[in-house]
Amino acid sequence: MQSIEEQAWQLLEESIIYYRGRPVGTVAANDVSQSALNYDHCFIRDFASSAFLFLIKGRYDIVRNFLEETLRLQPKKEKLDAYTPGRGLIPASFKVVSINGKEYLESDFGENAIARVTPVDSCLWWIIILRAYVKATKDLQFALQPEFQEGIALIMELCLATRFDMYPTLLVPDGSCMIHRRLGIYGYPLEIQALFYAALRAARQLLVCAGDEEIVIGIDKRLPLLQNHIRQHYWIDINRLNVIYRFKCEEYGLTAINLFNIYSDSIPYADLAVWLPKNGGYLAGNVGPSQLDTRFFSLGNLMAIISSLVSEQQSQAIMTLIEAQWEDLVGTMPMKICFPALEKEEYRIFTGCDPKNIPWSYHNAGNWPVLLWILTAAAQKTGRKNIAKNAMELAENRLSEDEWPEYYDGARGMLIGREARRYQTWTITGFLLAKELMLHPEYLELFSFEEFDVENAGYACNL
Amino acid sequence: MQSIEEQAWQLLEESIIYYRGRPVGTVAANDVSQSALNYDHCFIRDFASSAFLFLIKGRYDIVRNFLEETLRLQPKKEKLDAYTPGRGLIPASFKVVSINGKEYLESDFGENAIARVTPVDSCLWWIIILRAYVKATKDLQFALQPEFQEGIALIMELCLATRFDMYPTLLVPDGSCMIHRRLGIYGYPLEIQALFYAALRAARQLLVCAGDEEIVIGIDKRLPLLQNHIRQHYWIDINRLNVIYRFKCEEYGLTAINLFNIYSDSIPYADLAVWLPKNGGYLAGNVGPSQLDTRFFSLGNLMAIISSLVSEQQSQAIMTLIEAQWEDLVGTMPMKICFPALEKEEYRIFTGCDPKNIPWSYHNAGNWPVLLWILTAAAQKTGRKNIAKNAMELAENRLSEDEWPEYYDGARGMLIGREARRYQTWTITGFLLAKELMLHPEYLELFSFEEFDVENAGYACNL
Repeated sequence: MQSIEEQAWQLLEESIIYYRGRPVGTVAANDVSQSALNYDHCFIRDFASSAFLFLIKGRYDIVRNFLEETLRLQPKKEKLDAYTPGRGLIPASFKVVSINGKEYLESDFGENAIARVTPVDSCLWWIIILRAYVKATKDLQFALQPEFQEGIALIMELCLATRFDMYPTLLVPDGSCMIHRRLGIYGYPLEIQALFYAALRAARQLLVCAGDEEIVIGIDKRLPLLQNHIRQHYWIDINRLNVIYRFKCEEYGLTAINLFNIYSDSIPYADLAVWLPKNGGYLAGNVGPSQLDTRFFSLGNLMAIISSLVSEQQSQAIMTLIEAQWEDLVGTMPMKICFPALEKEEYRIFTGCDPKNIPWSYHNAGNWPVLLWILTAAAQKTGRKNIAKNAMELAENRLSEDEWPEYYDGARGMLIGREARRYQTWTITGFLLAKELMLHPEYLELFSFEEFDVENAGYACNL
Repeated sequence: MQSIEEQAWQLLEESIIYYRGRPVGTVAANDVSQSALNYDHCFIRDFASSAFLFLIKGRYDIVRNFLEETLRLQPKKEKLDAYTPGRGLIPASFKVVSINGKEYLESDFGENAIARVTPVDSCLWWIIILRAYVKATKDLQFALQPEFQEGIALIMELCLATRFDMYPTLLVPDGSCMIHRRLGIYGYPLEIQALFYAALRAARQLLVCAGDEEIVIGIDKRLPLLQNHIRQHYWIDINRLNVIYRFKCEEYGLTAINLFNIYSDSIPYADLAVWLPKNGGYLAGNVGPSQLDTRFFSLGNLMAIISSLVSEQQSQAIMTLIEAQWEDLVGTMPMKICFPALEKEEYRIFTGCDPKNIPWSYHNAGNWPVLLWILTAAAQKTGRKNIAKNAMELAENRLSEDEWPEYYDGARGMLIGREARRYQTWTITGFLLAKELMLHPEYLELFSFEEFDVENAGYACNL
């Protein structure tokens, strides 16, 4: 009889997409009981955990093919247009189509997606995957090829381009990341900022300086600004909550302390004061004009630890919070995509009455097994292995019994997601990658970063 | 004894800011009873109506000086940074400061503003004012100077640059226009799109082709896309409401009809079905993923008429709606900045509990006399002079008696705004400009546009 792990590896193998005979990615889900819709696509964000596993197992070819093919899908010219993907974007997903017996890759940049959401995170994940490939294979030459240098530079230009505002964060529309439906995450959502930081770190290591000095200088300027902005303005712990609670408002001028003019009446300060443990804290979901979204978003917080966007002390505080509020943030299945759910009027207003995102379901505080690997990685990086161990114990048997569902519902994650597919690839890879990271903490290096130090950062061209 | 008009002209004269002996702008308000804060600044958006009046009266020098000085404040380089204004931006406002007896202009790009909001509209208004200057003086050479060509091109580059999404509209943060506080107008708010369209039209007339072909081509591509997008996806009348009401949801793929996946439960369809007159209609406040903001925003709708962003038929429908719902949209003081007010939970969630934007006050459905000129201009353009006449009758005596307040409060605009300044310059210029436009419809040309026709548009370089 197969072990759960053996079963999972086999399912991963079966999820591989072949294009003209070569493996190029993995399907989102392999659930024959439901119509495919776009679950037969390879999503860039979903493939990240597949990629890290293939790299760990020495299956470099799949990741290399994936990087080469998706790079070909990136638009290389035309910047003054609309209704066509912007130069530098990486599609949300692609699939193999067959026309007259010949195979082609069909990409989706959001023009097919429900509500036409933009996959801002794709280009950020793409750079993170590319760096992992170079780390695993030690083949820097691969990333130094001119077409890859151009691809990285185009993404950086898109991210670093002059915009209307002066924050170091990225302004994006609602639903532009893993949460790809409207959920009140317009503006400067944490998930995008954490991925942006990791992608900046990765790009800096991969870009050859010659010819791209302006971009490299831009990255070096942006990294500390972004880091300070997030560490200062997104951070919430009991001390910071007390400062926010007592903020003066309507301050005009450069000396303002309440920079974003947050009215503490808009914050659930009483609930938070009870919920926050003494040494715990986390990054807010969003910060903008008179806006502080105090929801906890898991991917953003955990990626902030892994990429060293937050300080060592803040990293520990986030893990302390997860441990202290385990029932809320993990419950019976690691782990909640965000907490708490939008309910009642907030649900109605922020989601636009989305029936898929009802309270405690799907993106609106559902539990997502894929997050197991990111939780495990953050636990390893902070030396809090017990957290990873406890999470794995919850997930291990149940995932296999439930046939690897996409997500779970309910305040504690007790229900299989109402519209969840079975055999969701990133549920499988989330489990497998967590297993690998527990046994081999050294694999963390594939996608983690130490504290940024501009003096000693070094460049690819110095290697 | 002075007539009201004579008084208003004198107050406008007294609002002029002098810089090194030359007139360069007008202060926001001249209310000695309250602390100045930033009301002693010249705001670019506020100055537009002053500029049109000065041009009408042949006072070209002030407008020329304004354009030259603000152009000097525009950042010309550096695009890969943060916490400094982006290349191409025009500041929200400026003031004259004196250091060691020498005068300097100090600009504010939002770094001083409450909640650090970004003045996206400034650069759009700036181009509109520049075109009006050229129209009035017939001095095209002024705009053809290299530094002005560069200034226009930088603004266009900022607006037309590749972004993450594929809409032809501009993605902006909340509070980036006349409504410069959080009010749920993040994303693609109508006011910005209407000003963007007018600025594109103006830039196209002013840009020399040589050297800027890419930008001119970009403008020609964007104009029809933007126009169609707004006319189709922002339009609401009873027929369109019925389509929205019966939308299928969760459509995947290119054939989707409900492109933005709007759930009709999120729309106050029952109220709207009663409120919309048979031949009336208007442009929605915002359209995004699962988002259709059905509030009526006056500046956006009226500017859409003036710039021919909407069709002739749609223009008539908007004026029909204003006439039919006069009590709601105009009440006792022309006119509401938006309608209806955000109340209860919507107020709390969208404004972040802003005490200045309580329901039926200030930006949240207050009445703003400055809109009188834009209403009058739209009435003239559509041949609906009675609307302008009725509006003027409401405003004329009351404004002077109330000492020209910034705004009015209450569902019908019966109360002087709770925190309104007196002697607000754009209240005064709104009244004077409306007067001029009623007597001399030909002045409309300064800032209006006929239907765009790419075939017969012509370029500055052809003149």
